[in-house]
Amino acid sequence: MGRAVTDALTDTVGMVAGPAADRDGDAAAVFAGSDVVIDFTPPGHTARHAGLAAAHGTACVVGTTGLAAADHAAMDAAAMDVALVQAGNFSLGVNLLTAFTRRAAAILDDGWDIEILEMHHRHKVDAPSGTATLLGEAAAHGRGVALDDVARRSRDGVIGERPAGEIGFATLRGGSVIGEHEVIFAAGSERLVLAHRAEDRGLFARGALTAARWAATAAPGRYDMLDVLGLKD
Amino acid sequence: MGRAVTDALTDTVGMVAGPAADRDGDAAAVFAGSDVVIDFTPPGHTARHAGLAAAHGTACVVGTTGLAAADHAAMDAAAMDVALVQAGNFSLGVNLLTAFTRRAAAILDDGWDIEILEMHHRHKVDAPSGTATLLGEAAAHGRGVALDDVARRSRDGVIGERPAGEIGFATLRGGSVIGEHEVIFAAGSERLVLAHRAEDRGLFARGALTAARWAATAAPGRYDMLDVLGLKD
Amino acid sequence: MGRAVTDALTDTVGMVAGPAADRDGDAAAVFAGSDVVIDFTPPGHTARHAGLAAAHGTACVVGTTGLAAADHAAMDAAAMDVALVQAGNFSLGVNLLTAFTRRAAAILDDGWDIEILEMHHRHKVDAPSGTATLLGEAAAHGRGVALDDVARRSRDGVIGERPAGEIGFATLRGGSVIGEHEVIFAAGSERLVLAHRAEDRGLFARGALTAARWAATAAPGRYDMLDVLGLKD
Amino acid sequence: MGRAVTDALTDTVGMVAGPAADRDGDAAAVFAGSDVVIDFTPPGHTARHAGLAAAHGTACVVGTTGLAAADHAAMDAAAMDVALVQAGNFSLGVNLLTAFTRRAAAILDDGWDIEILEMHHRHKVDAPSGTATLLGEAAAHGRGVALDDVARRSRDGVIGERPAGEIGFATLRGGSVIGEHEVIFAAGSERLVLAHRAEDRGLFARGALTAARWAATAAPGRYDMLDVLGLKD
Repeated sequence: MGRAVTDALTDTVGMVAGPAADRDGDAAAVFAGSDVVIDFTPPGHTARHAGLAAAHGTACVVGTTGLAAADHAAMDAAAMDVALVQAGNFSLGVNLLTAFTRRAAAILDDGWDIEILEMHHRHKVDAPSGTATLLGEAAAHGRGVALDDVARRSRDGVIGERPAGEIGFATLRGGSVIGEHEVIFAAGSERLVLAHRAEDRGLFARGALTAARWAATAAPGRYDMLDVLGLKD
Repeated sequence: MGRAVTDALTDTVGMVAGPAADRDGDAAAVFAGSDVVIDFTPPGHTARHAGLAAAHGTACVVGTTGLAAADHAAMDAAAMDVALVQAGNFSLGVNLLTAFTRRAAAILDDGWDIEILEMHHRHKVDAPSGTATLLGEAAAHGRGVALDDVARRSRDGVIGERPAGEIGFATLRGGSVIGEHEVIFAAGSERLVLAHRAEDRGLFARGALTAARWAATAAPGRYDMLDVLGLKD
Repeated sequence: MGRAVTDALTDTVGMVAGPAADRDGDAAAVFAGSDVVIDFTPPGHTARHAGLAAAHGTACVVGTTGLAAADHAAMDAAAMDVALVQAGNFSLGVNLLTAFTRRAAAILDDGWDIEILEMHHRHKVDAPSGTATLLGEAAAHGRGVALDDVARRSRDGVIGERPAGEIGFATLRGGSVIGEHEVIFAAGSERLVLAHRAEDRGLFARGALTAARWAATAAPGRYDMLDVLGLKD
Repeated sequence: MGRAVTDALTDTVGMVAGPAADRDGDAAAVFAGSDVVIDFTPPGHTARHAGLAAAHGTACVVGTTGLAAADHAAMDAAAMDVALVQAGNFSLGVNLLTAFTRRAAAILDDGWDIEILEMHHRHKVDAPSGTATLLGEAAAHGRGVALDDVARRSRDGVIGERPAGEIGFATLRGGSVIGEHEVIFAAGSERLVLAHRAEDRGLFARGALTAARWAATAAPGRYDMLDVLGLKD
């Protein structure tokens, strides 16, 4: 994904990603020389980069997930001075799916069972996917509960009837599937299914650039893709 | 469906449906003796029933589709005095699908192609289904166009590339399928799919009763299921 | 399911199921008075019933799963004298799916990843379903391996890349879904998907009756639904 | 697709495709210098190329569809001397789907309705796809009927109940979908669905090369991909 973004960078949009981000000077130079920086580094750099963004007045798009409390505190502080967009998935379709999932979960009572299915290629090492977890959090948020209190991440053996309120996850792995997600709301006699299929990895890069262009002119603050896409309720 | 509703009627909810509705006196008696009437009659009775509703101060839920201008005028007049809910599909899931379809169509530009697929049992005589047309209208409404200007209802032979802005319909028939609808938004490298499956005909009857209970306490006016379900934007 | 079968029984087809089967005399009377008996009893009765079938020259259709070695031995012995059909799922569609799954697994090398997905209603207490396990066994059989050596029944956390040869299971639970199964063969750039949806519980009863009619005229021996349906390779 | 094949060509496998095939000398040189030739030319060259194959003792893989009677006659004549493989789709998955479709249609009576759904990208100019038609022909062949006698290629308006024995087609167009096909067998209370998804255009090129390698050592004769893949019943 990093390379796909690099191919599309412009004079005013910089990027920090991978090993290069380990060298302080390099990252500082990118922040100093750009209007917006896209940050796809692994966890551990976010707080420092947020500080660089604030110091240079550079907006920032953060694709890192698994942030610690200190990262969030640094981002909150930086967001006094610059626009920071943070997201786990930059595709327009996935973000629309997330918004619809939250809204459906808020409208439908727990006579509707929520299940989240995802399929990815055989090389993916973790399960469920980060996006599946985002969708589960959106559903839990819609219902006013914490995902950890209601998530069921595997089913095997004699496990009893499905409790009302549970949010179930199921994971498929195989072939070269880029990423497919399905949120199922199943009631007594009907099902509502909201789904997304990624067909091309480049779509995530294009979404990050959309976020960068938006952040370049946004007021200081912390944002997510729903803000970028105008999907906030 | 009429029978399923009848089984669930209460003292204060009446129903007019089928041949019985042809006899003026019968319908008048139902309106006179009920707080709310569910009207599942074929086209041709709607204007008269709207008049009865107003005359008796009885709220009304109208499941008739294919209404004429005169029917709408009569309903507008009656809605000065009583609450009238009119809908082409009473399932909660379908109405949520309709709301999401309109919203997605409003957000996604015409780089996203919209296609609507439906499957019903082998005995259904028309295509596409009334619900598929409702979904197409919701999509067209979201885009600010008229469905008739952009609908493509069949494809056969050498028909050329798909024009941007088109809303396509595809129809499957077979077996005992109660009703499945899928709205596909397909962009350059991703797809968003919003779908509904009915598993039991009784769900439409239950939806009509939900509407009746809601209408019994609503202010005079014309409403649809999005009002009943609180899904209006 | 028992009741659905009972409704369709004829003079020459008997049935033993549920509590009634606990009383020796009752079961013996059914076997004595029928040309074919459909046996839907829970585990524990199979060996005795096989003996009754042989003693009375009565063909038998066994829907019981989870049989012990002693049950199989008794069935083998009885099959010297009468026709015995044993199956985990009596639907024609599921059995065809099973045959295609075995054949596809035999043809496609392990560059094709096999995944099995199932969804059932919220009241089902075990996972994966018996039919999903049958499909997994068919796939393993096609590949010449034992399912227990290659099955992956849950995925949660950082589990590493998917090993070639694995057969994965994923389980969804919700609403009133009668039973849906999907076998996915995913290669580097294509997917073959074989799926079945049950829409009505009565289909299993009809399949058992089809088996009973077939067994009534079959030569002594042990059979499964692929024999009944003429699907043996 | 031509370019994808070219990238994978070896010393002994030649290819004729596109405009170059219009010049007699070029095609003759390719046939003279190769053990096997892959022919992806548009209609009009097939008969001449079959003659070149026979003259040079060169096996040939023909991807051209829409062949005329004269083409078939020339191929029949050439097949006395060399191996000729002709196919409308070279993917292993699609060919397996075709074989299963024919077999299912042969086993399931016309209480099972057959429907064929396909989706392709917005630039495809014809409907239904060539592969959908191949699948329809496989289903018709399994039932012992001619596709033209039972095909229903569009449904729009009040068209009456679905006749038993009909084979229906439905077409979706949108986005960048490479190619998805679904064959649905729908009975009174169950559905069997056989489906294929192409995720990468290169898979067709790889299938053509598989066919070329197979043809290089095959006895003279006419073959299709089911022969190459060992899927003939």
